Amino acid sequence: MAKNSPKNAFYAQSGGVTAVINASACGLIETARKHRNKIAKVYAGRNGIIGALTEDLIDTSKESVAAVRALRHTPSGAFGSCRYKLKSLEQNRREYERLIEVFKAHNIGFFFYNGGGDSADTCLKISQLSETMGYPIVAVHIPKTVDNDLPITDNCPGFGSVAKYIAVSTREASFDVASMAKTSTKVFILEVMGRHAGWIAAAGGLASTRDTEIPIVILFPEVTFDRDKFLAKVDANVKQFGYCTVVVSEGVKSADGKFLADQGLRDAFGHAQLGGVAPVVASIIKEGLGLKYHWGVADYLQRAARHIASKSDVDQAYAMGKAAVELAIRGNNSVMPTILRKSNKPYKWTVGVTPLSKVANVEKMMPGDYITADGFGITAKCRTYLEPLIKGEDYPPYKDGMPQYVRLKNAPVKKRLEGEFRI
Amino acid sequence: MAKNSPKNAFYAQSGGVTAVINASACGLIETARKHRNKIAKVYAGRNGIIGALTEDLIDTSKESVAAVRALRHTPSGAFGSCRYKLKSLEQNRREYERLIEVFKAHNIGFFFYNGGGDSADTCLKISQLSETMGYPIVAVHIPKTVDNDLPITDNCPGFGSVAKYIAVSTREASFDVASMAKTSTKVFILEVMGRHAGWIAAAGGLASTRDTEIPIVILFPEVTFDRDKFLAKVDANVKQFGYCTVVVSEGVKSADGKFLADQGLRDAFGHAQLGGVAPVVASIIKEGLGLKYHWGVADYLQRAARHIASKSDVDQAYAMGKAAVELAIRGNNSVMPTILRKSNKPYKWTVGVTPLSKVANVEKMMPGDYITADGFGITAKCRTYLEPLIKGEDYPPYKDGMPQYVRLKNAPVKKRLEGEFRI
Repeated sequence: MAKNSPKNAFYAQSGGVTAVINASACGLIETARKHRNKIAKVYAGRNGIIGALTEDLIDTSKESVAAVRALRHTPSGAFGSCRYKLKSLEQNRREYERLIEVFKAHNIGFFFYNGGGDSADTCLKISQLSETMGYPIVAVHIPKTVDNDLPITDNCPGFGSVAKYIAVSTREASFDVASMAKTSTKVFILEVMGRHAGWIAAAGGLASTRDTEIPIVILFPEVTFDRDKFLAKVDANVKQFGYCTVVVSEGVKSADGKFLADQGLRDAFGHAQLGGVAPVVASIIKEGLGLKYHWGVADYLQRAARHIASKSDVDQAYAMGKAAVELAIRGNNSVMPTILRKSNKPYKWTVGVTPLSKVANVEKMMPGDYITADGFGITAKCRTYLEPLIKGEDYPPYKDGMPQYVRLKNAPVKKRLEGEFRI
Repeated sequence: MAKNSPKNAFYAQSGGVTAVINASACGLIETARKHRNKIAKVYAGRNGIIGALTEDLIDTSKESVAAVRALRHTPSGAFGSCRYKLKSLEQNRREYERLIEVFKAHNIGFFFYNGGGDSADTCLKISQLSETMGYPIVAVHIPKTVDNDLPITDNCPGFGSVAKYIAVSTREASFDVASMAKTSTKVFILEVMGRHAGWIAAAGGLASTRDTEIPIVILFPEVTFDRDKFLAKVDANVKQFGYCTVVVSEGVKSADGKFLADQGLRDAFGHAQLGGVAPVVASIIKEGLGLKYHWGVADYLQRAARHIASKSDVDQAYAMGKAAVELAIRGNNSVMPTILRKSNKPYKWTVGVTPLSKVANVEKMMPGDYITADGFGITAKCRTYLEPLIKGEDYPPYKDGMPQYVRLKNAPVKKRLEGEFRI
């Protein structure tokens, strides 16, 4: 192979998938295809980094222009993702060396990793190892997390669409319970994701606006659950408005530091039952106030809801994938593209860049002044931050009433290494 | 008042609300406004029939053209609904007589009742009583129920939008779990409404099409839950596809005739816990197969999801409200407009009419040949029936990322009767 012939790129999706992680893949592949003199082919890891470890690579050059284009409106991880955290270099150098070995075998000179904090850390380590091992790799991390907990970047692709789904669903369910409250359900409880930070729960607060006021009580993981204070708040809302909506984060903890969801539920046979936090809150309301309630658990629906994705979010996810390629071919190693907010009204943003060393192992929590003094709502400052992120609709195409999401061919790249790598 | 001066109309929403019951209200009010020589004003019951009993009427003539128009894209019951079943004439003649008294006091000559089977029965009784009491009322029932269980009409407004929401959500969540299955979640369980009939659960089957095959196991209320057969089916799907999606109706029963949801859950203190059926199914999968799972409960989200309403459904809901007025002013008493299916491909339908005596107290169950022989899926016949009902999108307007749903003024009509009626 000629010394200056372009190298291939490796791309992998990591951790929990989102409504827009494929939009990042779309931005990356489309941009790489425009720079064939710099990047020959994009190989994707089947099921994330596991695909690299086991030499199970997907040749994205086999996908049609239309199929790649359709990734922009397809939720989930088109190449498969995985929950697999590489150990530290000291604990398992063998895995990192294997990655370099696979990259070498397939002439891979670019490593793109699309994920959250853990994958940023992995990306950083691979870039460091490639230097010490003398095999040059340009490693770029592409931000993705519904938890919105990456530092430096103003927000994380994936979060805006969850936020929009939760805000819209909270508004809709609130209209429903308001209609029923006179003789039936008075409290609706919606459980949302976010074990460590209350960003997603905060989005429930967007359901209530000046035009459309809704009594919403938010239970944040950042605020220790206080049963009496909570019941008093719900009771006051029901007395004033006739109904109340509760948005509860799965990560809410009681004073003993335990998850509220983890109440040691047992079935009739004494078997432990893994419940959510919504039914626990429902029981607290029933016992404490005797009010009729309904509860829902959004679970995967919230992060897969491409049908109501935020246009801001889709655009940014695409832009991050595109920027990753542009940074890489300019030789920017060990970096992550970021979203820089320029203004709120009108919402303007641009693409920035940060060294991975500033991202790895740093978790961005929700600022204290984003939560109201009583602990149950979002402040104006929080609203100003969140509102642009749910802006705009970006509907997928439909056929016979159903959204048309793409499934790729995912053709394998022929293996070049002997033996099997066990993970 | 001159003998031939037009009478007023009374309209009320009954039972669980839907994403499109307000579209029926829109069709009714807009059509009545075009016939002011026949219908003077439309008064709505505040919180359904309770508004009539307590003489708590809303003057819809105070609402702007734009506000009434916006009802078409607003979920929930704009005037409030109620769960209040009038007793039989023999048991509580007093309530029926009170209704006639209120109608008389407000010169109401048309009674429009928007609801399911119970309200069809109430509507019929009011029409019968008005004859025996010598105060003429034209009573028309407007079909509405997410349960799709009214007879005669091909389908019920409200159902198509729930079906679309469940089909879309099931597809999206299935894409999600498919991405995660290699190292994490292998089974996703979605709990849906439908205590008596499996229409809504059946809609989950629409997520899988020839283009986009998805392994879905449906648990219908019509099919007794068989733990071993169920586990074998899930296991086979996970072995073949790597993952499996389960759509479970809240009404699924075990062989002892009890709801599967009603497993006598207790918290750590021995208090009874009202859980859904999804966590119960999750526990069965965990115990029986040891697979990692996630579960969601759509609850109110499914019936309030106007953001992803079916265009067929919205059009039909509007048409039913419009037809009700047209039937009434032509003197058709004690009837219900219906949806008549003319053809499947292309989907064509028209408006029909049926006497209320044929509707009241008749429940339409899902035909046996709509469920596959193994009891876990929908047949081609079922698909042919369901597909047109989720056709088309009918997006509400958005502002700053949020759907703009209307809240009416709901100005009260001045009371004319002395004393208070206790319900």
